Amino acid sequence: MGKTKLLEIVDFSRDGLIPVVVLDQADGEVLMLASMDKTALKKTLATGKMHYFSVSKGQQWLKGEQSGNFQLVREIRVDCDPVNRLLFCVEQQGGAACHTGYRTCFYRRINEDGELETIGERVFDPKQVYKED
Amino acid sequence: MGKTKLLEIVDFSRDGLIPVVVLDQADGEVLMLASMDKTALKKTLATGKMHYFSVSKGQQWLKGEQSGNFQLVREIRVDCDPVNRLLFCVEQQGGAACHTGYRTCFYRRINEDGELETIGERVFDPKQVYKED
Repeated sequence: MGKTKLLEIVDFSRDGLIPVVVLDQADGEVLMLASMDKTALKKTLATGKMHYFSVSKGQQWLKGEQSGNFQLVREIRVDCDPVNRLLFCVEQQGGAACHTGYRTCFYRRINEDGELETIGERVFDPKQVYKED
Repeated sequence: MGKTKLLEIVDFSRDGLIPVVVLDQADGEVLMLASMDKTALKKTLATGKMHYFSVSKGQQWLKGEQSGNFQLVREIRVDCDPVNRLLFCVEQQGGAACHTGYRTCFYRRINEDGELETIGERVFDPKQVYKED
């Protein structure tokens, strides 16, 4: 898809990581906000499947590797100069992006009393999707 | 609005900053992806206007301070545990969030040839809005 040129314009100089926002191409819903290092971006471009960098684990991870719910890249947008944030429109397989089983990681809002309120719908039971180690 | 409880649940432990994604409440369009430290979040909650942390300047900034295009907070969503990413739905004053004059910072996409392609519409001329120092 000729997207490897993207690697040349993205600025990873801050700390080697960039934030990326991921939208469902079907309706533009925000599914996730995550981080990529340059290797995760390379893997994403090479495979067409979203790869991220896990700060806690210190390594890249392929979204869907455990659950089978891959995210297929459909469009990539870049932010204003310097390009150090990306927006991906994806086809979310399995209908849910969040490991909790909700469609989006942002399934809770702060209500008028300052309390967390669930607004999303659970698509799958995580116990059925993620096997215990 | 009782949102100060939010300060207690957001985890700033990685490097003192969290990524935040900002949507136009009118239609859910992603306007910006930026960073907040705890002080920027406090100021945002206290004033109802989006404040960010500029890594390059090393300080908080009020979106709209120069341009008058403030972002008024309408809804706040939190990500899955630990809460270290936020989503804000805002009322974007002036019709554009990006300092380039485009409605969103993500006004360019990577086309099939790997080239940058402008897909957004310019709302204002930045030379008219931002005065030279």
